[in-house]
Amino acid sequence: MTVPKSHPNGPSIAATGTQSLPGHHVRLGVEKPLKLDCGLEIADFPIAYQTYGELNADKSNAIFVCHALTGDQYLAEPHPVTGKEGWWDLMVGPGKTIDTERYFVICPNILGGCMGTFGPKEINSESGKPWGLNFPVITICDMVRCQVLLLDHLGIDKLFAVTGGSMGGMQVLEWASKYPKRLFAAIPIAAAAHHTAQNIAFHEVGRQAIMADPDWCEGDYLNQGKNPTKGLAVARMAAHITYLSDQSLHRKFGRRLQDRDALSYGFDAEFQVESYLRHQGITFVDRFDANSYLYITRAMDYFDLAANHDGNLADAFKDTPVRFCVISFTGDWLYPTEENRRIVHALNSVAANVSFAEVESDKGHDAFLLDEPEFHRLLKGFLDCAGKNKADAGNE
Amino acid sequence: MTVPKSHPNGPSIAATGTQSLPGHHVRLGVEKPLKLDCGLEIADFPIAYQTYGELNADKSNAIFVCHALTGDQYLAEPHPVTGKEGWWDLMVGPGKTIDTERYFVICPNILGGCMGTFGPKEINSESGKPWGLNFPVITICDMVRCQVLLLDHLGIDKLFAVTGGSMGGMQVLEWASKYPKRLFAAIPIAAAAHHTAQNIAFHEVGRQAIMADPDWCEGDYLNQGKNPTKGLAVARMAAHITYLSDQSLHRKFGRRLQDRDALSYGFDAEFQVESYLRHQGITFVDRFDANSYLYITRAMDYFDLAANHDGNLADAFKDTPVRFCVISFTGDWLYPTEENRRIVHALNSVAANVSFAEVESDKGHDAFLLDEPEFHRLLKGFLDCAGKNKADAGNE
Repeated sequence: MTVPKSHPNGPSIAATGTQSLPGHHVRLGVEKPLKLDCGLEIADFPIAYQTYGELNADKSNAIFVCHALTGDQYLAEPHPVTGKEGWWDLMVGPGKTIDTERYFVICPNILGGCMGTFGPKEINSESGKPWGLNFPVITICDMVRCQVLLLDHLGIDKLFAVTGGSMGGMQVLEWASKYPKRLFAAIPIAAAAHHTAQNIAFHEVGRQAIMADPDWCEGDYLNQGKNPTKGLAVARMAAHITYLSDQSLHRKFGRRLQDRDALSYGFDAEFQVESYLRHQGITFVDRFDANSYLYITRAMDYFDLAANHDGNLADAFKDTPVRFCVISFTGDWLYPTEENRRIVHALNSVAANVSFAEVESDKGHDAFLLDEPEFHRLLKGFLDCAGKNKADAGNE
Repeated sequence: MTVPKSHPNGPSIAATGTQSLPGHHVRLGVEKPLKLDCGLEIADFPIAYQTYGELNADKSNAIFVCHALTGDQYLAEPHPVTGKEGWWDLMVGPGKTIDTERYFVICPNILGGCMGTFGPKEINSESGKPWGLNFPVITICDMVRCQVLLLDHLGIDKLFAVTGGSMGGMQVLEWASKYPKRLFAAIPIAAAAHHTAQNIAFHEVGRQAIMADPDWCEGDYLNQGKNPTKGLAVARMAAHITYLSDQSLHRKFGRRLQDRDALSYGFDAEFQVESYLRHQGITFVDRFDANSYLYITRAMDYFDLAANHDGNLADAFKDTPVRFCVISFTGDWLYPTEENRRIVHALNSVAANVSFAEVESDKGHDAFLLDEPEFHRLLKGFLDCAGKNKADAGNE
């Protein structure tokens, strides 16, 4: 795999019409290329983003939301492909926990994504074909580098807060560590400061499922008019199990049968949980690009915030002025409380300003997307207090 | 899918030479067909089994071992296909915990298996082709029904003990519930009395991975000279994660890189855990049949011992004369202690003779296969005591 030292300068038109998706589109790295962790540079590349609410006069009310592995910029409005409500519709909107009558909310599709931001399905203007596996391997830090460029483009010096769940939380940690002067508060939710062996293992199963699909065509499926939908669906199914707790699966489905009263002694979706999982797999492939899935899971596996500080996580936050609110969920076995507590311990050891809350929930990792009143109450409380602190501090 | 009411009467020759595998082979159901849970009957079908040690004169020293999902009858000798040591070599042998100088150990390949017992890769003598998906859907109870026929064939009225881990433990529970007079002691290890929604979900991912592989050919791959190795490898990888604890993966691999000092920014097996998982997948397909994997996981998902007793697990053991020793491992998240405790509570509520031990181990579900001294000590202790009790009771 060779990737040119500099990336396309011509117009980058998305492979499947992502430029025609609603919302904002901007080209970044036009004047100066962006250097990635892998050593390659990208230039003049597209970022798609959404905003909700209004930026105030002194540009002090901006909350930046980082999305998770399979999320995108449509967090508080119907999704343009699926028609389903935004993934954080419960959280973000007028009068909601992140109140768009008070805050200006910004959410870009991440680097490597497939909803209009530069990713493997975008067209390489030199070859006229989708980048595919010629797209450079990216990191969480690379995603955040692009987000900082977007912030510059928007003319915002300092965010009131950066937040996000799961991989979104990893980006929050990266923001706070690398760009502490660009944000007042950081709220990583259900996140971790590194991927464990088990986290990597589950992702590797997903990647192998995609790569095992002959329609993946060694990553060249878009050029060959194919789509590895079966492999991607299996990857999604495996991952989806890790997003739910054993208890929530039990409560939702138990051993109940699907559309029948007795065992059928066959291989159809016999149990409700099978039918549900298959549905999760099948619907996912309509809105997600298989190569994006490979790149983003890889970025997550690479994530290890302490690694650049000789393994000492605390050094990633040394002298930080950022106010932190770290939130975990008791039923989350993907990024459990223990992993979040490691972040808090590191912050404590550098005397950072940090609140830590473990929310009681048996809904699993996905609790950050769901209607968990305690979670919403404490997030709103933190935003209110942080806002007051910020005002008291003379807006710093 | 249609299955004839009665199965082959002619010689059943295995599709890939399983009849030539070492060990004992017998045909059962010759005089009278065996009725399965699905309502179909099978007749004159092969069972392959191994024995270790010598049956004593009064036939009172037989221990029956039931193997797990991917196990087979070669528990205490090199595997004829892989050459690796037997899967319970640490447990069974002269002077070992299950001492073959004292006990006569019997272990058959299960119904639905692929090492010589009747399963989907065996030849249907009527069509001359492998059964494939025409093989009937089987249950854990069906497996045990065949084992009882084998016991009759061996002329043994009563086993000293039946034991096994994981799915082997499910068979043990079925033995104790349905045939309490045929065994003195039952030792289910790291088992459960039913499959949870999460258990079913993981199996469904594996099945979908196999079925997504075009070389599966709708189950007809043996006739078409194909083998869905990629799909089966992904299924094995996903399952393998559930056999290990997060801690054991961390201890074994952590985030260590494979054969390199720095990140390579590619999709090769970069982390050791990826390399390990890929190896698990690749080596598995050499010794296992994909359709067998579908049938056996289905049997496990169907397993719900309480279901035939109006959901009351205790009724499955009412008035049982069997001595139980239930063993779980703290680090097992596949069939955790909680599930084993349910079995013990049910046994307690019918005043059964039951010992329960939760062994401290962070090795995950696979601890029952490993060198866990506490586990071996308590199993040996139970066998010694049960033997003494049996002698005191005049051999009942």
